[in-house]
Amino acid sequence: MQLKKTLPLAASAILLPSLALAQEAEGVVEAMEAVAALNTEMVFIMNSLLFLVGGFLVFFMAAGFCMLETGLVRSKNATMQATKNVALFSLATIAYFLVGFNLMYPGDWVLEGWLGGIAPTVLEPVGVALEDVGDIEYASVGSDFIFQLMFCAAVASIVSGAVAERIKLWPFLVFVVILTGIIYPIQASWSWGGGFLDEMGFSDFAGSSIVHAAGGWAALAGVIVLGARYGKYGKDGRVTVMPGSNLPLATLGMFILWLGWFGFNGGSQLAMGTISDVADVSRIFANTNTAAAGGAIAALILSTVLYKKPDLTMVLNGALAGLVSITAEPLTPSLGAATLIGAVGGVIVVLTIPLLDKLKIDDVVGAIPVHLFAGLWGTMAVPLTNSDASFVTQFMGMAAIGIFMFSASLVVWLILKAVMGIRVSDEDQVTGLDKSDMGMEAYPEFSNS
Amino acid sequence: MQLKKTLPLAASAILLPSLALAQEAEGVVEAMEAVAALNTEMVFIMNSLLFLVGGFLVFFMAAGFCMLETGLVRSKNATMQATKNVALFSLATIAYFLVGFNLMYPGDWVLEGWLGGIAPTVLEPVGVALEDVGDIEYASVGSDFIFQLMFCAAVASIVSGAVAERIKLWPFLVFVVILTGIIYPIQASWSWGGGFLDEMGFSDFAGSSIVHAAGGWAALAGVIVLGARYGKYGKDGRVTVMPGSNLPLATLGMFILWLGWFGFNGGSQLAMGTISDVADVSRIFANTNTAAAGGAIAALILSTVLYKKPDLTMVLNGALAGLVSITAEPLTPSLGAATLIGAVGGVIVVLTIPLLDKLKIDDVVGAIPVHLFAGLWGTMAVPLTNSDASFVTQFMGMAAIGIFMFSASLVVWLILKAVMGIRVSDEDQVTGLDKSDMGMEAYPEFSNS
Amino acid sequence: MQLKKTLPLAASAILLPSLALAQEAEGVVEAMEAVAALNTEMVFIMNSLLFLVGGFLVFFMAAGFCMLETGLVRSKNATMQATKNVALFSLATIAYFLVGFNLMYPGDWVLEGWLGGIAPTVLEPVGVALEDVGDIEYASVGSDFIFQLMFCAAVASIVSGAVAERIKLWPFLVFVVILTGIIYPIQASWSWGGGFLDEMGFSDFAGSSIVHAAGGWAALAGVIVLGARYGKYGKDGRVTVMPGSNLPLATLGMFILWLGWFGFNGGSQLAMGTISDVADVSRIFANTNTAAAGGAIAALILSTVLYKKPDLTMVLNGALAGLVSITAEPLTPSLGAATLIGAVGGVIVVLTIPLLDKLKIDDVVGAIPVHLFAGLWGTMAVPLTNSDASFVTQFMGMAAIGIFMFSASLVVWLILKAVMGIRVSDEDQVTGLDKSDMGMEAYPEFSNS
Repeated sequence: MQLKKTLPLAASAILLPSLALAQEAEGVVEAMEAVAALNTEMVFIMNSLLFLVGGFLVFFMAAGFCMLETGLVRSKNATMQATKNVALFSLATIAYFLVGFNLMYPGDWVLEGWLGGIAPTVLEPVGVALEDVGDIEYASVGSDFIFQLMFCAAVASIVSGAVAERIKLWPFLVFVVILTGIIYPIQASWSWGGGFLDEMGFSDFAGSSIVHAAGGWAALAGVIVLGARYGKYGKDGRVTVMPGSNLPLATLGMFILWLGWFGFNGGSQLAMGTISDVADVSRIFANTNTAAAGGAIAALILSTVLYKKPDLTMVLNGALAGLVSITAEPLTPSLGAATLIGAVGGVIVVLTIPLLDKLKIDDVVGAIPVHLFAGLWGTMAVPLTNSDASFVTQFMGMAAIGIFMFSASLVVWLILKAVMGIRVSDEDQVTGLDKSDMGMEAYPEFSNS
Repeated sequence: MQLKKTLPLAASAILLPSLALAQEAEGVVEAMEAVAALNTEMVFIMNSLLFLVGGFLVFFMAAGFCMLETGLVRSKNATMQATKNVALFSLATIAYFLVGFNLMYPGDWVLEGWLGGIAPTVLEPVGVALEDVGDIEYASVGSDFIFQLMFCAAVASIVSGAVAERIKLWPFLVFVVILTGIIYPIQASWSWGGGFLDEMGFSDFAGSSIVHAAGGWAALAGVIVLGARYGKYGKDGRVTVMPGSNLPLATLGMFILWLGWFGFNGGSQLAMGTISDVADVSRIFANTNTAAAGGAIAALILSTVLYKKPDLTMVLNGALAGLVSITAEPLTPSLGAATLIGAVGGVIVVLTIPLLDKLKIDDVVGAIPVHLFAGLWGTMAVPLTNSDASFVTQFMGMAAIGIFMFSASLVVWLILKAVMGIRVSDEDQVTGLDKSDMGMEAYPEFSNS
Repeated sequence: MQLKKTLPLAASAILLPSLALAQEAEGVVEAMEAVAALNTEMVFIMNSLLFLVGGFLVFFMAAGFCMLETGLVRSKNATMQATKNVALFSLATIAYFLVGFNLMYPGDWVLEGWLGGIAPTVLEPVGVALEDVGDIEYASVGSDFIFQLMFCAAVASIVSGAVAERIKLWPFLVFVVILTGIIYPIQASWSWGGGFLDEMGFSDFAGSSIVHAAGGWAALAGVIVLGARYGKYGKDGRVTVMPGSNLPLATLGMFILWLGWFGFNGGSQLAMGTISDVADVSRIFANTNTAAAGGAIAALILSTVLYKKPDLTMVLNGALAGLVSITAEPLTPSLGAATLIGAVGGVIVVLTIPLLDKLKIDDVVGAIPVHLFAGLWGTMAVPLTNSDASFVTQFMGMAAIGIFMFSASLVVWLILKAVMGIRVSDEDQVTGLDKSDMGMEAYPEFSNS
């Protein structure tokens, strides 16, 4: 009786063909079909939901990068750094929607060859009917788009930290548009768009190489073309420490990134509509969290051993390096293995940050150690726990991505340098970009500088 | 066999009537009923989940408003601004639970006429049975309440930014109680409670007018009654710039608001339990994000063109204006249209912020341009992409909401001014509200003022 | 026809036994079994999803605690406070995975007696099959682990605020490892691992006693062993106010904690896969939010009455106390009762913070009033709205937890004091821990101290 009450309410068109005239055998078939249809529907909904939740979590990483970077620059450049972060995310959104998304997934719904991939993203129609859904076994186009967009934007966020405090706003933003609209989508399509790295068996679950090292390569090219901040490296080899102006804000940024990483890695399971998929997403959450912890503790201990005192920025970057390291394979490791993979990431950061200074590569926030070096480590660590991956293939993928991302970025940076100029003058660097280029101070009442 | 193992576990009361005695035909009917019941259950769960996730995202907007506003006031008023934001959200919660929610949805479960609507919210009982659920086709009352509450609180958050730095705490909080308990619920019931605007066909998906312009009207009335901050407008027509004390914090606030807007607009689909609903929520996510990007970039470019230098506060307000603009119709636009709708919002903000200063309307954080002007634009833009809406109806709805919200707020502000006084003395404004009214500084070790 | 199209797509192994050969009666049984299997699957997925969403929300509370505490210490200790918070969460993760989780749930999958519980957490295998799931009626092990871990880490976060500004880093971290790996899991197993408090009928839904008072007891023991900050209490009985350096950051921390509490209490329903469970989660969201509001407003009003001026830190702690108070029973109260339960929590905080100063118990952020005193209140308030609970049992549970947590913590603190020394020298306290122990300032350009 209770059932009768609810029956009409639930009678959606796809579920309840008229029963009255059904014969017995047909009735059973219809019942089984109704179960299957409901299952299909729920899987589609859960997968889409995974992308939506993952999407807003990874979106928030844009805020995390912004706070981390704004906290690690000197206060005279903090307004500029915040401006760059808001603008880069916004431009990445537009470039990825106009060009990037279809460029990255050329085979999915564009069938007219590679150039046919250059087209703006078109979402499924409003109130889409079952038969008009792009891929009923997967998820809604809109949820997929929003999730993938956030990865693309993260690549640009990585770059902005490395080149901070001396790059001009507009050339940087031009670079962002090219990076997020063209360079990253082409590279990502090799693995995630069914390209040659995917066919080779290259394994990079959520993007240690495809996103993080990729951003790190673009940043490295930028830092080399741009040169170090004025006064950073003395002629006598002395390195001037330029401490971040707001470490609590940087700490908040790290925590936001850690939070977002649950979506970054968890969402990359791409499915949540079955028992095994949701259990896998759960494994990924646990491993991601543990790797971050391993990276933070390894950096805490090693920085204390090396420098006698613990170093907060090393701890923050250690946690992030742990996260980057586990991103290539957050599913197959045990919790213990995930801790160790993350811890190695933390060690890498502590050892390579001073190394970059020796090479006079001026990476303001440590983006290259965290995203590039730990990303390479994470990529090569996949075969340690995933028997489907091989060191050779991982190395080849890593190298292909590196060569392309570094070269393409280098060319764009060099062109921008020639055409627009990318470096703020030494005088304006001394004054601070906020006064010279923005006319607006981040903390007008606090700063003594 | 595997199935047999799981069968008893899943045997919930609503699903499995005894099979043993069922005859063939009845068996098929029962099977179809079981499918329908499971479908009903899943739709209810997914809809409620949408409200819960949307609810916590929109809750977080209270933090976003607080950080935005606290970062944009001078440090001597920052403790007061934070206090107001925590208190207004808390009072909105209590007022909406005691009066507002039932006032806003009078027809839903109160049948004794309009005055019967004045009653505290009663949630469904603990462990509610299917037959006691308020609306089995919709969602749990608690999830609906928490979602709607957050919209109501947002209206008050909008006001607090505009009247900052010179309003007294207690009269402001009295206004908040009246606004969230009575004024907003009455107005919102016109559209969302099945009132006359709904019947007319007024279309405001997530509240460009109902929430944002409504808050903007209440703020405008407050700013007019209250007057400008001491020293803001000189007799010679000179406008004194009073820069925000912590722009990175304001930037964080903007990002939190952007994050929350996924819940604000996405949750307003009100359903996520079917393929078409979840695909619509996905569309909304994508359009909301893109409109924010459009607003930010439009404001970045236009502010640079007009003032030679980019302006971070314009970029922040531009992104927010993009979000407000798309809120009236985040579903029907294409991504391109959403970008343009948001961009127009960004342009509006850049053009109207100085205009308010010319009119000596002192809106500390730009709440009126962002929420009122962009909200009106968003409301009028609905018919551009949604053929079910008409310009005439949109205009009438916009006007009805505006006249009521402005008039009712004005009356309350005037009464508060007459009875309690609402303005902090000029001396105390110079000292700063934190010292004069709170006895507690926001940054006791930093501020030079 | 449409159904036929989707049928093969949805044909997962558990759903569709071959129909071709089925006879009528078998067909109906199979159809009902397929419905039951789908229901089982969806319940498992929804429960796991609740833990994953709850897990990331409660994770973010680590950031909330960090911002609250970092904002409430003086700027010369802010880097150290941030470092402690990142490190404690990381160590809690590792300790809970290595020992804590299995120690807390000894009966669940370890059957070899109590000592068999000392083993690292093992997640379900990758791509787990239905028959290998640990508990098909509950949720995935990974999702359960991540959710429970966050509660364990919160206990340590509570301690770090109370002992701030004068505890040495490494002894504190050793304490954290013992607390999160051993002390908390043993205590929590009494209630949540099927131990004697559970059998007695002790009722603590999400942990007013088990988590919050537990952390408060550990903090109280630490504060007593450690002594007050240098200069806090003069010999003449004068109490020196040591104001927090960044109240907007502390306010952000409070908002993040409030946000996280939706996951803390909502997730503790442990299930979301039925109508009644999701409606209960909704009730919990609404009550949790309302209790926080009640606590904030009570503290606002009472602090104004007592001290003539409103006190932001009291308001922040009042909201948190409201949240702690409702945590023992967020389900059964009406919204009105939840408001009052929270308001009493706010009153407790305002009255007991000065009391601790009279006793020369130096709790830097008010963690003991908020988490211990309001936690005890919340535990004793359960029988007011839940007829299954009794005051006697609640008192006994509260006392058992208190005696164990305080004693065990005291012993560990005393050992650490004897072996390592736990207190930073008076000179270094004057200098500030950031310079003396870290060599790194939180705000190198701002602070005048």
